[in-house]
This record gives sequence, C-alpha cells and structure tokens, in this order.
Amino acid sequence: MQTYTAIHLVNRPKSSIGPELFEVKKLERPTLQEGEILVKQSHMSLDPAMLGWMSPDTESYIPPVELNTVMRSSGYGEVIESKHEKFVEGDRVTGMFGWQELYAGKPQGIHKVDPSLPADMVLSVLALPGLTATQGFFFVGQPKSGETLVVSGAAGSVGSIVGQLGKAEGMRVIGVVGSDEKAQWVTETLGFDGAINYKTDDIGAKLDALASDGIDMYFENTGGEIQHRVFERMNAHGRIVVCGMIADYTKAEPGPGPNWMNIIKKRLRIEGFTMPDHFHRTGEILEKLTPYVQAGKVQYRAHTIEGLEAAMDGLNLLFTGKNKGKLIVKL
Amino acid sequence: MQTYTAIHLVNRPKSSIGPELFEVKKLERPTLQEGEILVKQSHMSLDPAMLGWMSPDTESYIPPVELNTVMRSSGYGEVIESKHEKFVEGDRVTGMFGWQELYAGKPQGIHKVDPSLPADMVLSVLALPGLTATQGFFFVGQPKSGETLVVSGAAGSVGSIVGQLGKAEGMRVIGVVGSDEKAQWVTETLGFDGAINYKTDDIGAKLDALASDGIDMYFENTGGEIQHRVFERMNAHGRIVVCGMIADYTKAEPGPGPNWMNIIKKRLRIEGFTMPDHFHRTGEILEKLTPYVQAGKVQYRAHTIEGLEAAMDGLNLLFTGKNKGKLIVKL
Repeated sequence: MQTYTAIHLVNRPKSSIGPELFEVKKLERPTLQEGEILVKQSHMSLDPAMLGWMSPDTESYIPPVELNTVMRSSGYGEVIESKHEKFVEGDRVTGMFGWQELYAGKPQGIHKVDPSLPADMVLSVLALPGLTATQGFFFVGQPKSGETLVVSGAAGSVGSIVGQLGKAEGMRVIGVVGSDEKAQWVTETLGFDGAINYKTDDIGAKLDALASDGIDMYFENTGGEIQHRVFERMNAHGRIVVCGMIADYTKAEPGPGPNWMNIIKKRLRIEGFTMPDHFHRTGEILEKLTPYVQAGKVQYRAHTIEGLEAAMDGLNLLFTGKNKGKLIVKL
Repeated sequence: MQTYTAIHLVNRPKSSIGPELFEVKKLERPTLQEGEILVKQSHMSLDPAMLGWMSPDTESYIPPVELNTVMRSSGYGEVIESKHEKFVEGDRVTGMFGWQELYAGKPQGIHKVDPSLPADMVLSVLALPGLTATQGFFFVGQPKSGETLVVSGAAGSVGSIVGQLGKAEGMRVIGVVGSDEKAQWVTETLGFDGAINYKTDDIGAKLDALASDGIDMYFENTGGEIQHRVFERMNAHGRIVVCGMIADYTKAEPGPGPNWMNIIKKRLRIEGFTMPDHFHRTGEILEKLTPYVQAGKVQYRAHTIEGLEAAMDGLNLLFTGKNKGKLIVKL
C-alpha cells in the first residue's frame, strides 16, 4: 500500500451530519521515525460522542477535532511496521487511529490485544463502550444486589453492557429502547427483566408495572421524556449516572430537566462522567470487567457497515437509533 | 405553672400559612413517669422544613405531623423536673420540643448544652442550621481551598454558616440574597467576597463579574432563577449540594430544572441531603463545626419574635424572606 485514504473534517455540523462535513483524501504512505509504529486499521468504531468532537464547543471535556485534520475515532488494526521496541509486525492493537486506513505515530494510548479475540468483540466490549459501562455502573452508580436499575439506550453499545452487569450483580433490570425488536433482544437474549419501547409505550404506566417498588439506579444514555418519568419514581438514596443525552445532541433547544425538589426529598445523587477522565485507570477498569466477559455474562452485537467512506453517512444511524448494536465500520 | 399552652396542627396548608392551620390549647401540667423529664421551653426555632412537616406528602424524608397533635419544632429550654438519672433540674437542653411551653417525655434526642452559651446562639449555630451547613458543606460538597463557592439563601440560617465555612476554608464566596441590607451584612459583617440581590440584580451578569473563573461549588437553598444561572457557569468537576428549594415550597407548579447536558460536559455531581439522615452522626459533625465557632469564624444573627402564638404568623417570614437571621420564637 503506497497510498492510503483518510477522511478529514472540513466543516462543523449544523443541521445535518453527512458527507458535506468531510473531505476524502488520498495520501502517501508515511515514513516512520524512530519510536513510531505503522498500523493498518481494519475496524473503526462510530460513537455518539463524535458529534461533540466535531462541534466547536470549547466547553466540552475533550478539545474538538481541528478543521482540515483527520476525523477522530477509535479502532482496531494490525501493526505492519515498527520502529518501537515493544511492538512487532503482526501485533493486534486498539487506539485512537482516526478515519484513515493507516495510522503512523508513537504508540501513546495504543494497546495490544489478544489476537484470538474477534475485532468486533474488542471494539464492542473491551474498548470504549465496555470501559464506559464499567466505570459508570460500578464506580459512579455503586450498585447493590436486589435493587432496581433502569437503563436508557438499553440496546446501545454502553446500555446493553450496563444492563448485563446489573443482571450479573443481582439487580432487577429494565431497559428503555426504541423498537420492539430491541425490546425483544434485551429481554430474551440479554435476560433483562423488562423493556419499554419509548416510542410506543406509555412510559410512566409501564415503569409503574415493571418497577412497582420504585427505581434505585438510573443509567442515563438518552435524555428525553424517560428522564422525567424515571426521576419521578426514584427511591430514597437513588443514584443517577449521567453518561449520555443522545436525544438532545442534535436539538437546537434541548428541553428542560426535572425540578430539583425530588433531589432533596429522596436525597438523590446525580453524577455525570466521561471516559476520558478515567483513561489512566483503564487497566483497573478492565480487571473489573474481564471476569464478567470470561464468564459469558456480557453478550454483544455489532452492526457493521462496509468501507471507510461509509462512515460519513453511517454516523447518522446513531442519532436516528437505526443501528442494531455497536456501530462498526469494516475497512 | 399548672396549665400550659400548646399549639396543635389541625389543617394541612393549602394556599396560605397562618393561624387557620392551628388550634391553641390550654393543657394541664403533665405528671412524669419514671425515666422522663419535664422541660420548660424558652426559645423555639422556626425552620423552612416545617412546611414539609405540615404537608400530607408521605414521600418526604420524615413523616408529616399528624393532625390534632402538637406542631413539630426544635427548641431550647430548662429541665424543671426530672425522673431520669442523667438529667437534673436546671439543666439547659435542646430537642424537638414542639410548639408548646412544656415538654414531658423520655429524653430521646434531647441534648444538654453549656448553660453559658446564649439560647439564640445554640439554636442558630449549634443546632439544626449549623449541623445542616456542616454536613452539606464538608461531607457532601468536598470543598477545596481556592475554589469559588456560590450559596443561595446566603443570609439565612444555613446559608450564612456555609458561606463563613467557605471563607474559613480559603474559598472565594459569593452569596445570593433577597435585599441590599442582607447583601451588606454578608459582605461587610461575614466577609463574603461578593453578594447578589436576586430581586434587583441581573444575576447572570453579576455572576460573570464576581465569579469570572466559573463556579466550583454551589450550595442550593432556594431554587428559582439563580439555580439556572449558576448551573450554566459550573466548572468541570463542580459539586452542587441541594439542601433547600424554598422558592418552590409554596408553589403549586414548581418550575423546571436545567437540562442535564451540562452534567456530562462538566462531569458535575448534584447531591441532595437532609439532616435527619445524619442525626446519628451529630457528635462527629459538631466536632467538625465547633473549632470554627470557637475561633470566632461563625457569626450569626437571630430574628426573634415574642410569644408562642406569634409562631403561627411568624412562619411566613421564612417564605417571604422578611426574616433577618435565624427565626426564633421567645416564649
């Protein structure tokens, strides 16, 4: 491969997300400096956080992608050349490789992975989604066996892992999803105790039926009406882990939150977190997660689209909820 | 004293709070059983939490006062008769004595206090307000020297102590109050770095001027517009201690809260608490607070009204913000 394809961000998103924001480049294969590695990326992860990375908001937790540079993303690939003592040709690695076929640079933040694990399993469970789910569920949420957990975006990459960790920890788990197919998947395949289709169900009535003793922990991935209906039903000393608000990411005027009186009456804790604050604890978090994966308690499904350039339109699947499982681009 | 006066709650509050909710009773002086004490109450505390105690809401953190029983309150008094081995005539005590001149019963939850301390100082600092301020500020808020603290209800019994603890801990402290006189008191007497009169100031503009580096900790006593303006200006990893929402207690339709997106972007923690959850730690909390009091770092002012029956109208001062300092009824 003497040339390779890379996709640069050239416009900030306004009303839509699509090819108009990007430019496809043909570039020369890079020459390595001492201490660098060259990775051929085979699988790339698309995540809701990307909308934030593309936006010019300097207040966010991670600097936006600069215009006319490669779009940021995490991925999986193989080392095809190494001038770094700890990496050899053939190593399988994950890291923030961006929207490009080849990545060249120092291996900062790049981790070797067991080559026997399928790439989509690595990106779906042992990378960003699994780290996020584990950090939020255990370290922010402080779950207790016997409690009731509600998770929104429950068929999504993070939510599906959170709910399965909840089941593994002895909780009653209710997932909120956007289709009957997803409801069936989380209850029948993942073993959740119940599911709510927020598009067709009466959310409050269904919560009353499925969580008749109230809700102890809410893992928030979406925002929207479900947030209000769950908030009204929180038990004393409940915890709300705020991980995502995907329903609001593309809204010009995000809706209001619930009145705070319930925070006092029920002594609630509402806490936001983002994984980049905790990347330095990746080892510790994976140690917590891996035994559940090894015990077969964390299933996943990947929604794979083909070809680097498919990423430009594919991103929209996340915001329309049309992906079924972890969204992955196969290069 | 062969008879004494007691005030019973006979109606639940609807649109107003006043004598129509209460009935004044003349009762016979009680005869003590073994293990009981008789307290002559001299000072009684009126607190915002009382509205909750009068309301029929069974979801609150403490059961409502039953109709046709004495109204609940904390107070200060003198033991005038004792059939309990640990109490003698002349002991000064605090406890939940209720709206009555005499209290008879087992001394559960009743504590002796140093008789050299003035009653209004005990009720203003070393009782509910000081415990609440200390618990919320230190144990929920996790303050750090150099940070910026905003406290609403800053001239109130809890807020004024929170702000002074903030100053003692090396924070920049901005108090939100409801009059210029209170603004002057918190800055000139208590040493806050700035004050905002929410009734007349442009809250956002004033916050920008007084907290130009953003806000690290917000101690919420009131709700209302200030909540939104502070929330927008929270720094990363900020903490919001939700202690009271007095602006909403008497509203039929409490206003919405802020959208939660900022909770993720800034990784905020919002946590509610009420003192009754922590009464078992009263000793530990007083150990934390007392050195500040002894060092002269916690000043207070009491707003005293005269006569038990004045409590019925006096309670309104809290909801109109017309009290200047801790509201106390002198019997």
